Amino acid sequence: MTLYLNLAEMLGARIEQGLYRPGQRLPSVRALSVEHGVSLSTVQQAYRMLEDNGLVAPRPKSGYFVTDHRSLPALPAVTRPAQRPVEISQWEQVLELVRGTPRPDVVQLGRGMPDVNSPSLKPLLRSLAQLSRRQDMPGLYYDNIHGNIALREQIARLMLDSGCHVSPADLVVTTGCHEALSTSIRAVCEPGDIVAVDSPSFHGAMQTLKGLGMKALEIPTDPTTGISLEALEMALEQWPIKLIQITPSCNNPLGYIMPEARKKALLTLAQRYDVAILEDDVYGDLAYNYPRPPTVKSFDEDGRVLLCSSFSKTLAPGLRIGWVAPGRYLERVLHMKYIGTGSTCVQPQLAIADFIAGGHYHPHVRRMRSQYQRGRDLMSDWVARYFPPGTRVSRPQGGFMLWVELPESFDTLRLNRALLEQGVQIAVGSIFSASGKYRHCLRMNYAARPSAEIEAAVRKVGETALRLLVDHHSEA
Amino acid sequence: MTLYLNLAEMLGARIEQGLYRPGQRLPSVRALSVEHGVSLSTVQQAYRMLEDNGLVAPRPKSGYFVTDHRSLPALPAVTRPAQRPVEISQWEQVLELVRGTPRPDVVQLGRGMPDVNSPSLKPLLRSLAQLSRRQDMPGLYYDNIHGNIALREQIARLMLDSGCHVSPADLVVTTGCHEALSTSIRAVCEPGDIVAVDSPSFHGAMQTLKGLGMKALEIPTDPTTGISLEALEMALEQWPIKLIQITPSCNNPLGYIMPEARKKALLTLAQRYDVAILEDDVYGDLAYNYPRPPTVKSFDEDGRVLLCSSFSKTLAPGLRIGWVAPGRYLERVLHMKYIGTGSTCVQPQLAIADFIAGGHYHPHVRRMRSQYQRGRDLMSDWVARYFPPGTRVSRPQGGFMLWVELPESFDTLRLNRALLEQGVQIAVGSIFSASGKYRHCLRMNYAARPSAEIEAAVRKVGETALRLLVDHHSEA
Ligand SMILES: Cc1ncc(COP(=O)(O)O)c(C=O)c1O
Ligand SMILES: Cc1ncc(COP(=O)(O)O)c(C=O)c1O
Repeated sequence: MTLYLNLAEMLGARIEQGLYRPGQRLPSVRALSVEHGVSLSTVQQAYRMLEDNGLVAPRPKSGYFVTDHRSLPALPAVTRPAQRPVEISQWEQVLELVRGTPRPDVVQLGRGMPDVNSPSLKPLLRSLAQLSRRQDMPGLYYDNIHGNIALREQIARLMLDSGCHVSPADLVVTTGCHEALSTSIRAVCEPGDIVAVDSPSFHGAMQTLKGLGMKALEIPTDPTTGISLEALEMALEQWPIKLIQITPSCNNPLGYIMPEARKKALLTLAQRYDVAILEDDVYGDLAYNYPRPPTVKSFDEDGRVLLCSSFSKTLAPGLRIGWVAPGRYLERVLHMKYIGTGSTCVQPQLAIADFIAGGHYHPHVRRMRSQYQRGRDLMSDWVARYFPPGTRVSRPQGGFMLWVELPESFDTLRLNRALLEQGVQIAVGSIFSASGKYRHCLRMNYAARPSAEIEAAVRKVGETALRLLVDHHSEA
Repeated sequence: MTLYLNLAEMLGARIEQGLYRPGQRLPSVRALSVEHGVSLSTVQQAYRMLEDNGLVAPRPKSGYFVTDHRSLPALPAVTRPAQRPVEISQWEQVLELVRGTPRPDVVQLGRGMPDVNSPSLKPLLRSLAQLSRRQDMPGLYYDNIHGNIALREQIARLMLDSGCHVSPADLVVTTGCHEALSTSIRAVCEPGDIVAVDSPSFHGAMQTLKGLGMKALEIPTDPTTGISLEALEMALEQWPIKLIQITPSCNNPLGYIMPEARKKALLTLAQRYDVAILEDDVYGDLAYNYPRPPTVKSFDEDGRVLLCSSFSKTLAPGLRIGWVAPGRYLERVLHMKYIGTGSTCVQPQLAIADFIAGGHYHPHVRRMRSQYQRGRDLMSDWVARYFPPGTRVSRPQGGFMLWVELPESFDTLRLNRALLEQGVQIAVGSIFSASGKYRHCLRMNYAARPSAEIEAAVRKVGETALRLLVDHHSEA
């Protein structure tokens, strides 16, 4: 049943890696059928899927060809963070990013905002309005601390897509993924404990470790396959690590999807050293390939994985609805949920449950995935065109964030300051590190429908970066 | 300008304390004018206010008389908790209370639910519905971590009623008062620190201390004037206390309002020993006397008071909108807010801001206050009628909770179990103590519009308590 998926994935990966070049002819349906021992229709299904994803195009009577996309910039280097536990810094930079009210005169490339203007979200707004008109006013009452049962049932159904079989009783609804992360970390760790993280890593998760008094041990990460298992194993050998915190599917900020085999190997490592895994899956449903990748949680048999997610990236962040499937830590997470916020805002829970039950979730997410994939291609092009030569760029497999690496000596804090005057905001790289690494990197959001305004903003980023680089060299 | 208020307050207190008995004639307007050196019209204003509150009634040509309310049961004793720092227990009992989804076949006397069926709440629901229909969909975007500015402006205006002058920039919107409490505690304390609390005390605040690894030092509390300042001073002398956590206005569960002079004295103590004060004001606007009492925060000059509140009791808890005015701890609270939930659900914030700006808040709260005051009188009557002789009952000055004290040997956990079979739920006293004190006490909610069903439920509580008492004696 999933043979065609495996085949499509393999071919897609080869194209992404440049083994088949743009314009090149791909193996014939027959050849692949023989080579892989699958039926002709399986190969055809795989090609159709790649076609849907825009990677290949059929030419009448001559087979499938790699679509002619522009030559891609080089990928970022494998990261090299300091491999010892550190106290986390960078709160001031994060605060600057999250404190301000977005100004309409600034193009926001810095924040983690999805596009909420799609007509496929309309039924959600309709549900919200209807709930406010209901006589019994369900939105006004205290919810129980687990969260609304109708919503938990729908979440449990969605989680089947990633291979997870959980019951609604195994889920706790939270105020966004933020609360899922903080309740999970507090459920597992005590202040002073060491947590291993993929690096770079979402600043919210990092600041949570800081706020709770943990130390972060940043593990080198490959921009296409994720956290280095070899480095992680060495760290587990050397330090009393309590928790491994990762975003393996459509990583923020790097955009990779950790291959299935590596996810399993990660779990095996965690079992061997008896540590818990916090898996942040907030972008998982936005993987460009269908079906979405499985979670580490889907392989978990002894409840050591706490899966955290939310509807902030798939639907809308202002609703603040997330969840955690905490495995064996359920009781502790419930306590932390109770003391953190008591219970979760009710009306958005009910509206989202309606939206999913009404069959609107998958069409919406499908639509957004292809919009974001186009956004990635365009923004990568713009970076190739407008940024200084030698700039490296991530190749996201899902989500809506691009990671850009400038020459080692570059300082994106200065860049950001210069850009704010010009009405553009980026996320500086240093907030994605516990110790202020990645100062030469930046992250840009390509969620919004592509426009001349956004292209102009990206161009400003690139040209300002070039100017700062030239100034730097002439100073030196 | 507030002379008449002071006079009304003094007369009201004397009536409450039984110095003037039901049916007794009160001093003449002229006599009071001479005695207090105020104008005749000031005295008349004071009497009119007491009349509005149902405490006095004019009789033509003969002056004002104390209204003929039934003889009140005795007040609870001053509490005597263990006066040393303890680890907090009782999580299982709290979980039992907050985990379940309310069953329609059970009369819920146990939870902290206000009445949300008042027509004066309708404009709020209208705003919620309108927001969902707006083209620009403001509810879908990430808020900044401070909270919506329009709402913060309205909260700053409301806080003037309690004597507080804060700017919107001094406020952080939170997911209910729960989050206000937990961010505040974490902003001030480290795990292992000692926090002094009024006792009995709201179980949520207590469990927050537990979850964050603090120790609670329970201070004896008077059922009419609040925390014992003498005992508190001894404790401050003896232990390295970091924080004093109190609910001084319309206390949950005891219902008292700490007199203004004692609030000031408390602040002086905190200054002398240089500790912070966490003031929970979640019921403050529901004080039966108008204007509402000042907060400790209103006297604070060096930013050591963190005021926590929410709209959960005045409007509706399902909205999950609270706030904190953290004084000098603003930066730390912002960090804790960021890691706890990132930002707060947007739509309810906007709807509440509309509701207050539209002038609907004060009329609604006025209406609820008088409903709750009637509820208190009725439920006190029912307890006097149906409960075992010797039962003591609090005399709440605001809010909607009655605290009932049975004989010392009584066990309300057993009572609760027996009652659940009969379709009634109460809050057992032990969850209001860090160390499981108050097992012989219980708390009942009188927010709902009085009905025969509720009277029948209270009667069941009383009669079941009597039966258990008799069984106990015959066993012994
Ligand atoms: C990886 C990751 N986890 C969690 C979050 C927070 O999600 P939420 O807005 O649901 O709290 C984000 C959002 O920026 C994120 O990028
Ligand atoms: C004294 C006190 N503080 C705080 C809370 C929690 O309020 P919220 O529902 O806004 O989190 C309650 C509610 O039970 C309470 O009684």
